[in-house]
Amino acid sequence: MSKFWSPIVHQLTPYVPGEQPKISNLIKLNTNENPYGPSPRALNAIEIEVGNSLRRYSDPTSERLINAIAQYYQLKPQQVFVGNGSDEVLAHTFQALFQHGMPLLFPDITYSFYPVYCKLYGIEGKIIPLNNNFEVDLGDYLRPNGGIIFPNPNAPTGHGVGLGVIERLLKHNTDSVIVIDEAYIDFGGESAVALIDEYPNLLVIQTFSKSRSLAGLRVGFAMGNPELIAGLVRVKDSFNSYPLDSIAISGAAAAMQDRTHFEYTRKRIIASREQLTAELEALGFDIIPSQANFLFVTHPQHDAVALAGHLRVRNIIVRYFNKPRIDQYLRITIGNDDECKKLVSALKEIINS
Amino acid sequence: MSKFWSPIVHQLTPYVPGEQPKISNLIKLNTNENPYGPSPRALNAIEIEVGNSLRRYSDPTSERLINAIAQYYQLKPQQVFVGNGSDEVLAHTFQALFQHGMPLLFPDITYSFYPVYCKLYGIEGKIIPLNNNFEVDLGDYLRPNGGIIFPNPNAPTGHGVGLGVIERLLKHNTDSVIVIDEAYIDFGGESAVALIDEYPNLLVIQTFSKSRSLAGLRVGFAMGNPELIAGLVRVKDSFNSYPLDSIAISGAAAAMQDRTHFEYTRKRIIASREQLTAELEALGFDIIPSQANFLFVTHPQHDAVALAGHLRVRNIIVRYFNKPRIDQYLRITIGNDDECKKLVSALKEIINS
Repeated sequence: MSKFWSPIVHQLTPYVPGEQPKISNLIKLNTNENPYGPSPRALNAIEIEVGNSLRRYSDPTSERLINAIAQYYQLKPQQVFVGNGSDEVLAHTFQALFQHGMPLLFPDITYSFYPVYCKLYGIEGKIIPLNNNFEVDLGDYLRPNGGIIFPNPNAPTGHGVGLGVIERLLKHNTDSVIVIDEAYIDFGGESAVALIDEYPNLLVIQTFSKSRSLAGLRVGFAMGNPELIAGLVRVKDSFNSYPLDSIAISGAAAAMQDRTHFEYTRKRIIASREQLTAELEALGFDIIPSQANFLFVTHPQHDAVALAGHLRVRNIIVRYFNKPRIDQYLRITIGNDDECKKLVSALKEIINS
Repeated sequence: MSKFWSPIVHQLTPYVPGEQPKISNLIKLNTNENPYGPSPRALNAIEIEVGNSLRRYSDPTSERLINAIAQYYQLKPQQVFVGNGSDEVLAHTFQALFQHGMPLLFPDITYSFYPVYCKLYGIEGKIIPLNNNFEVDLGDYLRPNGGIIFPNPNAPTGHGVGLGVIERLLKHNTDSVIVIDEAYIDFGGESAVALIDEYPNLLVIQTFSKSRSLAGLRVGFAMGNPELIAGLVRVKDSFNSYPLDSIAISGAAAAMQDRTHFEYTRKRIIASREQLTAELEALGFDIIPSQANFLFVTHPQHDAVALAGHLRVRNIIVRYFNKPRIDQYLRITIGNDDECKKLVSALKEIINS
């Protein structure tokens, strides 16, 4: 606390990201990173960019990257916004589109950065509980609001909703912006990008950190009506002209263009997820069917904190949230084959001892 | 304009950065980039980082970079904050330290992003005109305020104030934060970092974009009392956990450690500046003595816009600001020897034709 802080700073409850341990030899299944490396084409583009002139400012409009995303999704460049990770894109979205003096609706169990942004921008949040199956039920969102945001699939549950349900909500909710946070969409969900041309109040946010395996490069993006994108650009250009460095622009653009690597790795992760689900169910775990690159699991006979602790002494790190309703659950990232195998055998050992 | 925008968005007047033309063969003297490349040690560190795991999130605390900066300036790590370019550091500073219901004081002719941040965060700005010599006169800042910010040396004038004057202001102004934006300090000014331990309300902001020649990597930093830094961290962690990518962290840390390259290049730029000053004065230009890597020049017989236009057709691009008091000035970045030579001979040709 300090008299020099703006009053708002005293009220903040900053987000705490998953642990990034600095020791090696850990099986790190706690932050939903991709077990496979990024596209070799991305790495190559980065090498070339390093040889170019880092002494020059990067392109403030990130034109090359915006074009690559627009081309991938068959959109116009004016329908695409990019930022320094989807966290920055979300932050600008909260400030640019959600400050309307009416509550912003979002789920109780979801990405825990949403309430943090609400405090930062003085937005009232109205929490809508998941239903008893831990699902986002969009029927519960039909009430007056200054905006709606939810991830699809949701995190940390992995459960996804279909486009039909989303479209019903869009038809009813026409006066405020609906943001769908699709960080995990490529692992089995249906993207709402298909609905953008029809609904001027729909914004879809994605990231290069998961299915594109570039968490360390910090690139996220939003897609929607040019009017919404223009609002985001106004805030971005009042905050930081050059949020993406030259290397990130080139690397992400090349990653977007490499469909082969993208398809190959995401399919491997989906296959591993299905196999891991079966193996953990065989050990007695209850698992919410996942459309993401993680599983949200609970065991009727074993305490979640104890399980996480026993995994940790075996050098396996998973994510635990000390929060109501989910304090007996663990979120486990889908690793590579070897990591999955070691996880299963560690859990067997723990459960049978 | 859109009904979906938050009301604040309608009021914004976004910053317009200097042009980044996409054609080559231009002599680009408009955005104060460094004419020499970054440290080879930085490029090497980047290469190594690319070979590491970009699939992993970067370190949210940027520990390695913070340590490198702390070591360079002999500070504690808790006295250092890093961000995605000094623009992001400035944005967080405005939100974290300047929202006090009293006017923020800054010069009329200065970095034109300051009034933009004021609008973004609802801060009243009180503009203090430069004196008749185009100097920041800190005697004019002794009035009630919610904060003070000015660049030293100032941009676009290049004029710097000494530590004695700054310390006098700090002794009088103890209830609000004084931010010194030292983007250009390494080209001849005296850094106020030396005063940090004594004045808890002093924040010094620097960048890797100028003297470290890494504009394309987007790294800036702030130094001050741990209490001020903690306020910035609270805002940063409520906005974006990982503002710096892994490559930027490693590259900037290595650049900070390479004192030889830093000293060599900045001294070359200072020498070129002195020579260019003499040559332009010989052509009849009036020049404010510069402590930066640019000159702010006017010619009694030649219109500034016309000069800029004539330079542009000769593929030389300089910066012109269409603003009161300075609409007959050009800001010219110090280029390498060849660029300076071509600039002088082009100006000779234009003036003598």
